[in-house]
Amino acid sequence: MRRIIRWLVGGIAAGLAVGAWGADAGAVRERRLTEYCEFLSIPNVAADPAGLARNAQFILQMMRRRGVEGRLLDGETAATVPAVFGQVRVPGAKRTILFYAHYDGQPVNPAKWAAGLAPFSPVLIDAPMESGGRVLGPCSGQAAATSQRIAARGAADDRAGVMALLNAYEALVQSGRAPRANLKFLFEGEEEAGSPHLAGILRRHRATLASDLWVIVDGPRPAAGYPVVEFGVRGDVNVALTVYGPKRPLHSGNYGNWAPNPAQRLVSLLAAMKDDEGRIAIPHFNDDARPLTDAERQALAQVPDSAPALARELLISKPDGGGLPLAQLLTEPTININGISSGDVGAAASNQIPTRAEAVLDLRLAPGNSVAAQVAKIAEFARSRGYFVIDHEPSAEERASHDRLLRLVANDGYPAQRTRLDLPLAQSVVDAVARASGSTVVRVVSVGGSLPLSVIEQELQVPILTIPIVNYDNNQHAENENVRIDYLWSGIELLSEVLAIP
Amino acid sequence: MRRIIRWLVGGIAAGLAVGAWGADAGAVRERRLTEYCEFLSIPNVAADPAGLARNAQFILQMMRRRGVEGRLLDGETAATVPAVFGQVRVPGAKRTILFYAHYDGQPVNPAKWAAGLAPFSPVLIDAPMESGGRVLGPCSGQAAATSQRIAARGAADDRAGVMALLNAYEALVQSGRAPRANLKFLFEGEEEAGSPHLAGILRRHRATLASDLWVIVDGPRPAAGYPVVEFGVRGDVNVALTVYGPKRPLHSGNYGNWAPNPAQRLVSLLAAMKDDEGRIAIPHFNDDARPLTDAERQALAQVPDSAPALARELLISKPDGGGLPLAQLLTEPTININGISSGDVGAAASNQIPTRAEAVLDLRLAPGNSVAAQVAKIAEFARSRGYFVIDHEPSAEERASHDRLLRLVANDGYPAQRTRLDLPLAQSVVDAVARASGSTVVRVVSVGGSLPLSVIEQELQVPILTIPIVNYDNNQHAENENVRIDYLWSGIELLSEVLAIP
Repeated sequence: MRRIIRWLVGGIAAGLAVGAWGADAGAVRERRLTEYCEFLSIPNVAADPAGLARNAQFILQMMRRRGVEGRLLDGETAATVPAVFGQVRVPGAKRTILFYAHYDGQPVNPAKWAAGLAPFSPVLIDAPMESGGRVLGPCSGQAAATSQRIAARGAADDRAGVMALLNAYEALVQSGRAPRANLKFLFEGEEEAGSPHLAGILRRHRATLASDLWVIVDGPRPAAGYPVVEFGVRGDVNVALTVYGPKRPLHSGNYGNWAPNPAQRLVSLLAAMKDDEGRIAIPHFNDDARPLTDAERQALAQVPDSAPALARELLISKPDGGGLPLAQLLTEPTININGISSGDVGAAASNQIPTRAEAVLDLRLAPGNSVAAQVAKIAEFARSRGYFVIDHEPSAEERASHDRLLRLVANDGYPAQRTRLDLPLAQSVVDAVARASGSTVVRVVSVGGSLPLSVIEQELQVPILTIPIVNYDNNQHAENENVRIDYLWSGIELLSEVLAIP
Repeated sequence: MRRIIRWLVGGIAAGLAVGAWGADAGAVRERRLTEYCEFLSIPNVAADPAGLARNAQFILQMMRRRGVEGRLLDGETAATVPAVFGQVRVPGAKRTILFYAHYDGQPVNPAKWAAGLAPFSPVLIDAPMESGGRVLGPCSGQAAATSQRIAARGAADDRAGVMALLNAYEALVQSGRAPRANLKFLFEGEEEAGSPHLAGILRRHRATLASDLWVIVDGPRPAAGYPVVEFGVRGDVNVALTVYGPKRPLHSGNYGNWAPNPAQRLVSLLAAMKDDEGRIAIPHFNDDARPLTDAERQALAQVPDSAPALARELLISKPDGGGLPLAQLLTEPTININGISSGDVGAAASNQIPTRAEAVLDLRLAPGNSVAAQVAKIAEFARSRGYFVIDHEPSAEERASHDRLLRLVANDGYPAQRTRLDLPLAQSVVDAVARASGSTVVRVVSVGGSLPLSVIEQELQVPILTIPIVNYDNNQHAENENVRIDYLWSGIELLSEVLAIP
């Protein structure tokens, strides 16, 4: 209770009349959005450590404003981007629930953002830019309407999680209720970089982070908008591939038909990884993925089929997957071409045979897959097609002595995670979400996305659930990322109820 | 003779003591290089019409300095980049020989040029940049040594042709000899753009351009450096392909396995066009290419095999082509991936399914191929793999209603050309080259590269030969283009002899 009193005092000190809270929801929302606009204007990419540090300080300030005891948690190495930890101690509480979000974002390519948008100059828009959205002006709590969106890197993934959790706590207390479990908050700063130091943070602060349940707030709600609680995630690893051609760029006429074209070689290698329906064609690639349990199959059968509406919205005539349901496809391993580049296209294209061709793959992992094994399967497949596989920029000797030479470099990655569907505390969370939303909650066996949950499970032996709150059409991980403001408000309401479970 | 006298007067007026010419070869070379450095500093790409106009004026000035009567030839439309025409009338001459080169260059991507190099800031280098070349300083006639190279766009392809022809004429007269045929010079400004208005120029100035033989100066000499006379070229057309994915970029985890990835689709389409040895795998693609004649087969058999040395130099372990000789492969049609791009690679890569994937193909044509037919074969092949082929940016309806949608846009292109191997005037040219070089001349049935020679043949009914003069390792069409200064000098000597044939 001491925390709550301090928060009330802090609230009053900040000029907020507590008695006017309920009657002045507009002012509260304006204050919350103004703060969020400021948060989103701070760069949050791995390439900018100073920006990440400013994010962490901003979150500490958000905690202080709400009476949450906050501090930074460092890792086992100096290279660790600190996580931000906060807690609310509730005397007599029988349980501790830890809420996780991440404040870092995917790398940005500002040139790809629409006119008027920039990753760290948040603006209000009235629709996704790809659907004719217009820029309404700078992000501001005063100007924003519930029907609008905020566009910025991390607006949805996942500074929305930080924003919604801290405001949900504020809202819970403000509503006159109090938390019944001890609450902990953990906001990571390296999730999009593959959480290379999360295990170290967990080990170093094991007692601080002890809890009975992790609730992660990240990822999008389904396109249909119904509430979900997620029981698992895919693992993830990126693999960068480079195929080599002639030492110098060659005239395509004077050497064409004779000098091997590295782009042709790379497309041939990548094409062979998939069949015509986008199913993985590498032999035995999915053999070590654990088969679905009966409970998982039942839960999958209860997921509303959002695919037809999604396909219409995305202008997809025929989805990949050979007719399997979307929810089931999201439990399987993937191979995705994130990007490919060789030579030039468009106005800069010239008639040449390029010297190299590059691609970056995203491999999603299912339970049973290991990171090393998935990467090894790609390397082995390349070898089966005649490639000599190396992990470094090749020497002239290596290029001259191997007909097919592939540089393969993987990041650290992490495996998949799934929580048992029959866990009682999980049912309490599902019930709280159902109460707040007034509708049936769909239990998602595994989302398509990835979070380093296996690391948490391994280090802390704690069950993990995830509650997504943002709109599905948020351009997460790409240009023009955005969050719907009405989803922020419903996320805050929903999380308030979860923060109140005993 | 009037022209020659005017030239002599011009030379004296320019401060050159005619009597000192032979004894002062160093000063002559310095003056020629100084002029060439200035020429190369003028941008010569299609995107810069003002730059092209400055090139044309510079060439007129070069002609004036040498007493060559010069003027611009406009085309049938205002959009035509004028060609520069020059002539030397020889009273009593029984024949007219026209010498062609082009002053425009391939598009440039300055970001790809090595440090210290820029397309239009010519510098001296001591070796190709890809082989550890160093920048020696700005291009200057005074600083340059014969063993060095000049790096700039168009230094080799094909302002070297303009430079060598006008200096060869100067050298011929300077040596005390005189041309015995009427000489004409035609320098085109739209060759790298596919010569869209050359036919119009030829039609409009048919009488002005009348001749008994065209001699084109363009392209590289073989790697081994021996002299060649070329009897044909491949045709050429570029095809830009775009494959479409979801309307907006998608999270590769949340949609992977379900949303079709346009990069995966494009690599699959491109991979199917070639077999593992780089041979075209599209059925019947080469059926309409005219088979080689016996004379062509004999000439091909006499071409020294430069492939092993080339492969070593280029770090190519195993060339494409299923073991066929390089010279024969260069008589066949090609499909080359000039460039491919989708999403991002390297530091900007993110875990997404991109909205589109693009590639630019270069198709080289053999005699018998038509531009329209080659482009149609690509379109038909895509259709055979389920693509709906369009020529415009698709509407939402088109994207939603076609599983596989391909935008295919081709430029104008032009067909291949081959001159008969038994033409008597051609033998005179071969003999002149042999005299100047003191070695056997290889008759090349068809070079790999392309020029709009078919247009000339069609409009003017004149035979065409090509004499290449620049080094093969010139990075023609790519970054770090360069010309060896010793090749410029030997090109001038060789062309002087050809300019003297009766």
